[in-house]
Amino acid sequence: MNIKSLLAKRVQGLKPSPIRKLVPIMRTPGMISFGGGYPNAQTFAFTSVDVVFKSGRRFTIQDKAIDLACQYGPTDASPDLKPHIVRWHADKDGVSLGTEQIQVLTGAQEGLHVMAYLFLNNEDSVIMSEPTYSGTLGAFRAFTERFIPVPLDAQGMVTADLERILAKMASAGERLPKFIYDIPNGHNPAGVSLSLERRKHLLEIASRYDLLILEDDPYQLIQLEDREPLPTLQALDHEGRVVRLDSFSKIFAPGLRLGYASGPAEVIGFFQLYKQGLNLHTSAMDQALLAGFLANHTHTEFRTLIRENIGLYRRNRDAVLAAAQKHLPADVRYNVPEAGLFIWFELPAGFDAERMVETDGVELGILMVPGAGFSMTGGLKNYVRASFSMINLEQVEEGMIRFARMIERERGRIG
Amino acid sequence: MNIKSLLAKRVQGLKPSPIRKLVPIMRTPGMISFGGGYPNAQTFAFTSVDVVFKSGRRFTIQDKAIDLACQYGPTDASPDLKPHIVRWHADKDGVSLGTEQIQVLTGAQEGLHVMAYLFLNNEDSVIMSEPTYSGTLGAFRAFTERFIPVPLDAQGMVTADLERILAKMASAGERLPKFIYDIPNGHNPAGVSLSLERRKHLLEIASRYDLLILEDDPYQLIQLEDREPLPTLQALDHEGRVVRLDSFSKIFAPGLRLGYASGPAEVIGFFQLYKQGLNLHTSAMDQALLAGFLANHTHTEFRTLIRENIGLYRRNRDAVLAAAQKHLPADVRYNVPEAGLFIWFELPAGFDAERMVETDGVELGILMVPGAGFSMTGGLKNYVRASFSMINLEQVEEGMIRFARMIERERGRIG
Repeated sequence: MNIKSLLAKRVQGLKPSPIRKLVPIMRTPGMISFGGGYPNAQTFAFTSVDVVFKSGRRFTIQDKAIDLACQYGPTDASPDLKPHIVRWHADKDGVSLGTEQIQVLTGAQEGLHVMAYLFLNNEDSVIMSEPTYSGTLGAFRAFTERFIPVPLDAQGMVTADLERILAKMASAGERLPKFIYDIPNGHNPAGVSLSLERRKHLLEIASRYDLLILEDDPYQLIQLEDREPLPTLQALDHEGRVVRLDSFSKIFAPGLRLGYASGPAEVIGFFQLYKQGLNLHTSAMDQALLAGFLANHTHTEFRTLIRENIGLYRRNRDAVLAAAQKHLPADVRYNVPEAGLFIWFELPAGFDAERMVETDGVELGILMVPGAGFSMTGGLKNYVRASFSMINLEQVEEGMIRFARMIERERGRIG
Repeated sequence: MNIKSLLAKRVQGLKPSPIRKLVPIMRTPGMISFGGGYPNAQTFAFTSVDVVFKSGRRFTIQDKAIDLACQYGPTDASPDLKPHIVRWHADKDGVSLGTEQIQVLTGAQEGLHVMAYLFLNNEDSVIMSEPTYSGTLGAFRAFTERFIPVPLDAQGMVTADLERILAKMASAGERLPKFIYDIPNGHNPAGVSLSLERRKHLLEIASRYDLLILEDDPYQLIQLEDREPLPTLQALDHEGRVVRLDSFSKIFAPGLRLGYASGPAEVIGFFQLYKQGLNLHTSAMDQALLAGFLANHTHTEFRTLIRENIGLYRRNRDAVLAAAQKHLPADVRYNVPEAGLFIWFELPAGFDAERMVETDGVELGILMVPGAGFSMTGGLKNYVRASFSMINLEQVEEGMIRFARMIERERGRIG
């Protein structure tokens, strides 16, 4: 792919930091350096950080390691973390990444932002499923408001529609979207996963129209049927057109804001160039905590921990589905999510979920997220997203009774 | 000020997250919420984090606090940290901030970026001293390449020149810059601090032309003469036109990436709106570590720790100045930095510091940062920045001898 030709105009202004450029000279043996403007490690507030993990394992960041965790670090990744990411990615996805193909992010959300910054002029568009993650719309809207919606069903994005839409745009001579965006596992909010056949079809289509793909996959490992996830778009791609976002928010802890982008070295190079001016690098302390976790747990142990967490989510999902079946009216539609944290309820046509939640939610004591926030077209008014991640099992049945009551009130309003 | 009229066109696309909007409903007593898509705290990897500070104080993040440090948090600041910031800011600057006037950042660098995103269309300009911090140029160049240089001397930005330049632009009917940017203490790279008289003059000028001011102040507390810092621009301002960036990088630890913006609630509201899509929030773990430090040290104790660190920097500065006086030729000019970490050396006219460092640096074993990286005009070729923060005292004399040798080689080249 000719990446440079796809970049937004604003990217021209990015230049490498004059200081980071000197790092190789700094490393000359015997060098007396007045170069780096870093604070002296003696001034850092920390002596040590001792971590106990839920697994029972513990480790301590001290001596040289605490200085590294407290000091400015490289923009792409902390040197201690990067090899762990390479190994984990290879094990998890079967994809072997070069060291220039990884950019650690302040959460995968930052990757959505960086992609928008790098590629989206305000006249550019992205093509993606409707609904889509509201945070994606938030990130992309910082640079463009042009989104091309593709329908989605129980198998994920309807790639036949993707193909049809692009063919129509191409034959009309319209400016094609800059990239295809998808959440292939446990889609937020729709709860669906992209089938293997459609993954392959999506790649074929991207190839035909020479489009980049942004694969946003925070729920990959939250497989509620305890199956292995399907191959990633990145793993299936042989043309270097997938930029993939991995997140540690659902398998480690979201508060630390840790994710990473991987993909063609040229694109990742631009991630790095932009992130220098954005925030220099992702917290070195957070990276040290993740590196310590990965150093003290085998991949098998990490997978076992994830599987235990999935057990919790599966029980929650099943409880909500059972109560929904028992209490919701027959004209409310939803599907069984095989991955992720969400059930997407379609209410009868004419329903206004926003009005419903804002009018009745507080009084009935029930909250779901209205679908409109996940729409790029101002639609999806008769949908709500229900998250089962944090629910109290004892309240699920009562919750669905209240939801049914809320639905009937809204039905009354539309008459 | 009419902030809305100053915003870049791209800001129109920003919308609040539909989920964060529901938070007040979520807090209704008795609410059964399927709203927040947060992972369940039971799945987080951490049981506890036990910190030992260099002061000898220790504290442990555990129970509810570890769940909060591991979970997604509010965009503006972690609830545990914000009151500490309000108190510290009031004590340090004599400025009382409302809770809507603070945005915690992934390092103050992120604040430079956010200001550029919010205010700089590609035809907009910023007015600031030449030289300026290279990371500022990096952040701003992501959106514009128009910079208006103002000379700088031992008292900081020459505000008489600032006044003259703006008057000329205004009378020629030119588009005025969107804001004035300055680093008022221990300027990076110039090592100078803005005098009180010029602080007041700068505010007067901003008021006359109705301009915002971006006060970037990471070296405020690194006062090498052990004097109290001068009043901040924000403290001297009575018109709500200063956005101030504070950093914990030089007084706590830079690796955690912690800073904050403070200023008019309307501007900070846009910071928050943008940061939602950018990276949701600054690491809650890093915020918990800082909150723990501030909870376990009085302001007096914190100031004492900072003063001890300043002692180290002062010794380093004095050693470099003594060796420079002894070994450098008389036509090399520099001044004594009263704050910060840098000495800015002016070499004779015609010198090309980039060539000099790249040609001779490795061979002679001496590194300084060429001035060109701090120039918005492609100038400053005969300057170098020397940082004294991380030097080895025993190598300083030899370092200045090598620097003198490097200078003579360059002098030979220009003949």
